[in-house]
Parts: sequence; C-alpha cells; structure tokens
Amino acid sequence: MTAVLDPAVADRITAALHSQGLFQHMGARIEEIVAGGLTMALPFRPEVAQQHGFFHGGAIGFLVDNTTTAAAGTVLRPGEAVLTAEYKLNILSAARGGTLVCRASVVKPGRMLIPVEAKVFNRQEDGGEKLVAVGLATIAVIAAERVGGQA
Amino acid sequence: MTAVLDPAVADRITAALHSQGLFQHMGARIEEIVAGGLTMALPFRPEVAQQHGFFHGGAIGFLVDNTTTAAAGTVLRPGEAVLTAEYKLNILSAARGGTLVCRASVVKPGRMLIPVEAKVFNRQEDGGEKLVAVGLATIAVIAAERVGGQA
Amino acid sequence: MTAVLDPAVADRITAALHSQGLFQHMGARIEEIVAGGLTMALPFRPEVAQQHGFFHGGAIGFLVDNTTTAAAGTVLRPGEAVLTAEYKLNILSAARGGTLVCRASVVKPGRMLIPVEAKVFNRQEDGGEKLVAVGLATIAVIAAERVGGQA
Amino acid sequence: MTAVLDPAVADRITAALHSQGLFQHMGARIEEIVAGGLTMALPFRPEVAQQHGFFHGGAIGFLVDNTTTAAAGTVLRPGEAVLTAEYKLNILSAARGGTLVCRASVVKPGRMLIPVEAKVFNRQEDGGEKLVAVGLATIAVIAAERVGGQA
Repeated sequence: MTAVLDPAVADRITAALHSQGLFQHMGARIEEIVAGGLTMALPFRPEVAQQHGFFHGGAIGFLVDNTTTAAAGTVLRPGEAVLTAEYKLNILSAARGGTLVCRASVVKPGRMLIPVEAKVFNRQEDGGEKLVAVGLATIAVIAAERVGGQA
Repeated sequence: MTAVLDPAVADRITAALHSQGLFQHMGARIEEIVAGGLTMALPFRPEVAQQHGFFHGGAIGFLVDNTTTAAAGTVLRPGEAVLTAEYKLNILSAARGGTLVCRASVVKPGRMLIPVEAKVFNRQEDGGEKLVAVGLATIAVIAAERVGGQA
Repeated sequence: MTAVLDPAVADRITAALHSQGLFQHMGARIEEIVAGGLTMALPFRPEVAQQHGFFHGGAIGFLVDNTTTAAAGTVLRPGEAVLTAEYKLNILSAARGGTLVCRASVVKPGRMLIPVEAKVFNRQEDGGEKLVAVGLATIAVIAAERVGGQA
Repeated sequence: MTAVLDPAVADRITAALHSQGLFQHMGARIEEIVAGGLTMALPFRPEVAQQHGFFHGGAIGFLVDNTTTAAAGTVLRPGEAVLTAEYKLNILSAARGGTLVCRASVVKPGRMLIPVEAKVFNRQEDGGEKLVAVGLATIAVIAAERVGGQA
C-alpha cells in the first residue's frame, strides 16, 4: 500500500465525503488520505454522545463504516465504485471528550472484495491517544454505473 | 422471550434512549419495547444520508448498535447494566426515503453476555417493507455502578 | 426461498461436500438441502472435542463455514460458483455429546454477495435441541471458471 | 504485551491444547507462546482440504478460534479461565499446500472480555508467506470453576 495516491482520486473521495449529509451532521472531518488508507476524525460534542456523556457506539460505527469504505475507494481502478458489504467492530473502552480518530487500512485490494481494518482512538487535547475500538470491514467493488444498486 | 416487561423497565430504557444526544440528533424514535426485544425507527432526511441520497451505512450501524443494546436492557436483573461489546452488520440493499426500522431480539439472556440479533427494514409510506440489513451483536452485562468503565 | 430445488443442483452440492477431505475427516453429514437452505450435522466424538470434552469451537466454525457456503450454492445461476468471503459466529453455550446440527438460510440471493444466517443446535439422543451458536456469513458469487482464485 | 510469560502458564496452555481431540485430529501444532500472543500452525494434508484441494475455510476457522482463545489465556490472572464468545474472519485468498500459520495478538487484556486479532498466513516450503485470512475474536474471562458453563 505504498503507492502514491493520485491527487484527483483524493479530491474525488474528499468531495464525496463532504457531500454526505451524515458526515456533515456528525461533524466529521478527513485527517489524511493515502493510497490504501484514510483517517477520519470526529470531535466530541453532546450530539454524538450516549446517555452517560461518552461517545455513542453508533458514532464509532459511523466512523468505522465511513472510513473503511473511503479507504477502499483509494485502491480502485477507473470505472469502479465501492459499496459497504459488512463490518464488525469491537468497542474496547468508553471514550469521553477530545476527538475520535479512525484509521483504516486496506488489508488486500481484491478485485471484487476489499477487506479493510480500522482502529479507533480517543485523542485528547494533549495529543495522547487511547485505542477504544477495532473494526474489520468487507467493501464490495462495483461498476460505477451500478451505484445505488447493491452487491 | 414471552415474559411481560415491567413497565418501570420500559420507562427507564425509554428515558435513557431519549437522553442520548445522538438519538435526538439522528431523529430516532422507539416504536416498541417488549421483554427481549426493541424496535427503533429512523425517518429519512438528508442529515442521515450518504452522497447519493441513500441512508448512510453509519445510520444503519447506529440503529443496530442502539437497538441491540437497548433490547439487551430488557432482560437484565436488578443492579445490572449493559455495555456494547461488539456488533457486526451486513448491508443487503440501498435504502432510500421512508423510514429505517430496526427490530432487535435477544437470542439468549446470558449471565455475562447477551447475544442479540437485528433486522433492519426500509419502510415506505404505504407500509411496504424491504429487508436492508441484518446484524448480530454481543452485549456485556456489568454491575450498574461500573457504567462508564468497560468490559 | 420457497422455490423447489433442482435435483441436479442438490446432487452437485452433495457430491462437492462429500469430496471434501475435511467434511469426511470431521464426520459431518448432510441432513437436508432445499432452495435457499442447507442443514448439516456433526455427531460428537472425541476427535471434534476441546480439552474439557465439549464440542470444539472450531468444529462449530467448520459447520457454520461449510453450511452457509453450501446453502448459498443452492441459489446460484448456471456458470456461477461460491466462495466464502467472511463469517462471524457467536457461541452461546457449551455443547456436549449428541450431534451438532447447523441450519443455514440464505438471507438474500444477491448477484455478487449472498448473506446467509446459521443457527447451530446441540441435539441429544431424545431429539431435544438446544441452540448453541448463531452465525452470519457473506458468500461471494464468482464465475465457475475462477474457482481457486479469490474475490 | 511485552511482559514475560510465566513458563508455568505456557506449559498449562500447551498441555490444554495438546489434550484437545480436535487439535490432534487436525494435526495442529504450537509454534510460539508469549505474553499476549500465540502462533499455531496447521500443515496441509487432504484431511484439512475442501473439494478443490485448497485448505478448507473450516480449517482456517479452527485456527482462528483456537489461537485467539489460547492467546487470551496468556493474559489471565490466577483463578481465571477463557471461553470463546465470538469470532469473525475474512478469507482473503485460497491457500494450497505448505502450512497455515495463525498469529494471534491480544488487543486489550480486559477484565471481562479480551478482544484478540489474528492473521493467518500460508507458508510454503521456501519460507515464503502469503496473508490468507484475518480475524477478530472476543474471548470472555470466567472463573476457572465455571468452565463448561457459559458466558
């Protein structure tokens, strides 16, 4: 996964994420895009919390879903698009305050299926990070014209 | 799972969900709570969509996380609380418009771990429903005073 | 999934399973094949046990893997073959003696991906059954000539 | 996970694995045990193959189940035992001949739950390795006297 990422691909992925209603509504932001990997961040605010003031598990799920799918988008060939087939995540620790940072890495750039790993950290103001979740996703590769259909 | 649910338990779960920042921010609502099961709904609006106007996979993940954990909360004994340990979901179809309806059912009310299944439907105005995702979660049972800690 | 299964398809799946070295080595057998579903059984013997004399979790995994993949094989079109992309299982209870019975059902016969659910029961001599595991698998559809390659 | 592993713990885990009927029946062997990690190998033979002569997905599942659970066993406190709660694996490539090598690492040594990651490689005679599967498991910690019960 050391190939340099075409800036046009990075721009297209950035534009797609920024145009998601939920990406904006959650207050997420992209931190880094490389060939085979993507990092997304979600600052804490009450709107993404559960009843005890911690980050909601659904906010972690949103990050794992979105970051793994977008990471898979960095290894496509022309005319291909991605679709989330499935994901699994383990929540390891409650996360409070600061920012959730999800780092996703393509495990193998398959022809039909792209497995992607994710690690989610809770980063505090001082830059300290604690691992709070791990995930594993399967992203399907489809013809770009089939977007909106399903695998 | 046919036992009648204590109304005080239903009220406590309802209050907990309603006090979640993310539950409110997503615009979710509870449709039904029974002993061993819970149904949650999420109406479509651009704030929960991805870039092509479909429900975002992260919205589905939020529903699966929240509905399975709350369903596990219906089978606890006094002094116990629940914590999401992990979940996995498969997205079967793109879902557009209408409402997402997530129905979660406890598979087995274990002492330490409660596995919960979920099915997510896309319900249209005419009442028609299409299955769009299936999930399987593991919810940990902890002492209520340990809430905010982790399994 | 109520369509009648072509007997030639059932015969082909039966022959494929019977020709697996591991199927024979585990002592598995097919109990039922229908369109969209397959049931496989594994009688207890020390060779499939863990150190305390219960069925080994790996024996349950073998059943979930094999039964879900074979169930997906019942809904293919001519020229297609199946490949296990991923599976997840929750073990609910220790299982001892008798037979493990895994019932797999296709959730949706997708073009590229076939999600399949599985339930594993421990059946005793008297016919009584206890649910001991649940699983959820994603089976990839490939062209038959690509068998041995990978999604 | 850099703590040195007590040789008595390594011996106990080794003895437990060697006493499993399925471990012997599959022809598995332990390659390494450290604090927080365990490596298990499974040489190819027809008895662990599927119908096309590749390693069976169930053999990969057996390795992921067994290696992750045993790895969790390296981080217990006195009087504790482990129980496989759930696992998920993605199969990336067909594996043929040589040996399957599964390396499992504890992600976090939790009090109640120990998430463990696994990577499975296909190692050929010349020492070359190809990644063929990745897994993520949740192992429950129970009191040693409850072994045979369930989480």
